Amino acid sequence: MEYKTRNLTLLTDLYQLTMMYGYYKENMTETEAVFDLFFRELNGQRAYAVMAGTESIIDYITNLKFTQDDIEYLRSLNLFDEDFLNYLANFKFTGEIYAMPEGTVVFPREPLVRVKAPILQAQLIETAMLTLVNHQTLIATKASRVKYAAGSDAVMEFGLRRAQGPDAGTLGARAAVIGGCMGTSNVVAGKLFDLSVAGTHAHSWVMSFPDELSAFRAYAKHFPDSCMLLVDTYDTLNSGVPNAIKVFDELKANGHKPIGIRLDSGDLSYLSKEARKMLDAAGYSEAKIFVSGDLDEFVIRELKAQGACINVWGVGTRLITSNDLPALGGVYKLAAEVIDGKIVPKIKISENPIKTTNPGYKKVYRLYSENGVALADLITLDHEIIDTSKPLTICHPIYRYKKKTLARFSARELLVPVFADGKLVYEAPTMAQICEYAQKELASFWDEYKRFMNPHIYKVDLSDELYDMKQKILNDYKC
Amino acid sequence: MEYKTRNLTLLTDLYQLTMMYGYYKENMTETEAVFDLFFRELNGQRAYAVMAGTESIIDYITNLKFTQDDIEYLRSLNLFDEDFLNYLANFKFTGEIYAMPEGTVVFPREPLVRVKAPILQAQLIETAMLTLVNHQTLIATKASRVKYAAGSDAVMEFGLRRAQGPDAGTLGARAAVIGGCMGTSNVVAGKLFDLSVAGTHAHSWVMSFPDELSAFRAYAKHFPDSCMLLVDTYDTLNSGVPNAIKVFDELKANGHKPIGIRLDSGDLSYLSKEARKMLDAAGYSEAKIFVSGDLDEFVIRELKAQGACINVWGVGTRLITSNDLPALGGVYKLAAEVIDGKIVPKIKISENPIKTTNPGYKKVYRLYSENGVALADLITLDHEIIDTSKPLTICHPIYRYKKKTLARFSARELLVPVFADGKLVYEAPTMAQICEYAQKELASFWDEYKRFMNPHIYKVDLSDELYDMKQKILNDYKC
Repeated sequence: MEYKTRNLTLLTDLYQLTMMYGYYKENMTETEAVFDLFFRELNGQRAYAVMAGTESIIDYITNLKFTQDDIEYLRSLNLFDEDFLNYLANFKFTGEIYAMPEGTVVFPREPLVRVKAPILQAQLIETAMLTLVNHQTLIATKASRVKYAAGSDAVMEFGLRRAQGPDAGTLGARAAVIGGCMGTSNVVAGKLFDLSVAGTHAHSWVMSFPDELSAFRAYAKHFPDSCMLLVDTYDTLNSGVPNAIKVFDELKANGHKPIGIRLDSGDLSYLSKEARKMLDAAGYSEAKIFVSGDLDEFVIRELKAQGACINVWGVGTRLITSNDLPALGGVYKLAAEVIDGKIVPKIKISENPIKTTNPGYKKVYRLYSENGVALADLITLDHEIIDTSKPLTICHPIYRYKKKTLARFSARELLVPVFADGKLVYEAPTMAQICEYAQKELASFWDEYKRFMNPHIYKVDLSDELYDMKQKILNDYKC
Repeated sequence: MEYKTRNLTLLTDLYQLTMMYGYYKENMTETEAVFDLFFRELNGQRAYAVMAGTESIIDYITNLKFTQDDIEYLRSLNLFDEDFLNYLANFKFTGEIYAMPEGTVVFPREPLVRVKAPILQAQLIETAMLTLVNHQTLIATKASRVKYAAGSDAVMEFGLRRAQGPDAGTLGARAAVIGGCMGTSNVVAGKLFDLSVAGTHAHSWVMSFPDELSAFRAYAKHFPDSCMLLVDTYDTLNSGVPNAIKVFDELKANGHKPIGIRLDSGDLSYLSKEARKMLDAAGYSEAKIFVSGDLDEFVIRELKAQGACINVWGVGTRLITSNDLPALGGVYKLAAEVIDGKIVPKIKISENPIKTTNPGYKKVYRLYSENGVALADLITLDHEIIDTSKPLTICHPIYRYKKKTLARFSARELLVPVFADGKLVYEAPTMAQICEYAQKELASFWDEYKRFMNPHIYKVDLSDELYDMKQKILNDYKC
């Protein structure tokens, strides 16, 4: 299971290949196009997302190559001629890709990835890039919500067994750590992505011994310095916790310090409070209480509101599947074509205004207050430069009369170059750097955007030049 | 992207390895255990599931081997000693696995997979088997619902771009075809699993030409015998359909037969009915209308109820993520241990009765009426034989007073041997055979179990011997 070298070239929709064939036969192999990858909206209960998937895009583009086996399969479809199959056999990505760094807080309608490449190339990579960014951004976002509910408590990702396949569990674990989890139970994710891994034993361990106490003793014997005991196999308060304390005493007598206990069923508020009292009374006030079992940001908030004595939250199914929103609706839309060296903006008009795209070769600025608080994002055309020495008036992207003038502010471009002329030009940060950046990013936004229900909507505006251009195209189109 | 040779050995939770270490140090490497993989319940709106993932289990077990690289990573965790790492380096699966064939209709609390193996081995493989079966069974089940809504219309799986990662899109496409989809847009899934692939062009194709008619003409030129045109880029009824008919006329004049049109937005009921009239009036009554866009079983049923003229349903996001139930809660529970050559049943007791497991080394019978209708399933101990020459009285698994006597019936065992002594003993069926079997399976159940809301609950009973054994263990336990 290796991501650095995996070839995902055929991970695409057939219509990308039929369109490529059409463009090829129309002699459009050199026609350049600009595509934006973005999502239009969230589910109304989420105001922001946390970008993830940039590293996967790098791996994907780096390994992009049709194998001889792929070509033979495509030949067997009887859709393509030999000329085109020969073109595919020599296919190389030669274009430009800009993307948001992983951990960036992102909003609806902002390009998260921007591709400028010959249209055949840009079209081929649409599907895989969407799969990678949609999934990982979804999970990083969900994790950031769970972590927000947990506050300073640690959150561990425990969802592999319920994930939608091996990649969902593994790339999902990485995304969860970007979003704020401390680590994962998934060993291969730990190995491949340098994540902390955690885990001790299951109910089956306890059931495999004649009784609970023997099971705990055996575990403690082999893990004397990392001893965490699952106490709910038979009876948490009457058997599990007392037996754990007995074993902790034995560990202590031999100079070891136990880690704590885990609860996986029953009422976690009540049981954690009672267990805390018992542990404290026995002199284990530093022993931690881990919990697991159908948790998410809503359950964690409720349990904390009731004063549950929980130190570490193991979150599984609902995190790894983002169960309340199991798909991010990212799309990849043609924004411009390069005709005779000039960028010609393109727009997709829809009866649903939210589906009408923003045309042109664009970039995204984030505007900050003097003390580093994010105020608004501004989508501009690529050639526009924001002059931070002068006040800037920003408008609502649709209701233009809603204006706001920023006097003193700073601006940061969010899209960074990843591929130029087909070559990787981005030095991917380490996992630790990504996590630090993500936490800094999240901290730069008001809590009001992080509410679990009816969050405040962050402003994402269009520059005047972009807005005017869009209106002109729309008006010309109506004529 | 290859499944036949992929090594998923480290795709496991860390606690499987710490438990293995404990068992190893306790000299329990030869202790055999029996585990059942099953799900306890669905979400209340689904009465059945469609088994999928057996082929993935075969690939997983066949490639199970810790690489030198894996061993080095595990060494770096500072949890295990060299003895144990050496044991892992030589690890081989030597046990027995029974599983339900893919496409089998399955119910809560039935073992879908049964493992009998040295406990270290049985424990290691828990996580990956759950990941594979939970995900694929979930998607096959969702697909069967979508197909049920579509009736005799074809359903295509179009969800790759919204899938939870590459595996979710690819193994998910395969599962969707098991559940009843005719094919997929996912090219690599088509290649690897011998699925039909479909797809023509996107809006970007239309937008890349000076006008819609030129775009349609160009497409038809290169795909004269598989011409399907997306008609909603600008204005479906005033531009898209008339332009498509113009191009169909040109194709016809040259001896070709167009396939049809695709609608991806707008009101699919209204637009499909109007488009149908226009196509019929132009002499294209055989041209098909494909639709796509946020479809699922509920939307399809609604559209059909309104007489929408749709021939092929392209279903994406909501199918590939099973959005109304994004995880199947499959578990893997210790059912027995082999002590001195004798099978000793084990039970996990829970305050929640549904979480109390069925102990012992078990199998599952499906009982059929004389005309092949599935009547009930019966979980028995492995040594029990059902005598179909005599009437059989079955009971409700909890409310035993609810009884039913079957006079004339036949019985079929559902679990089949897949691995014996670590060797593959199952001849995996082809995709076509799996699909045929799945359709036959679904057809053997009353429609009442297939309702989308409040379906009738299918009977899954325990044999008297199993029931009595379970009660005895529970009663002994309370003492």
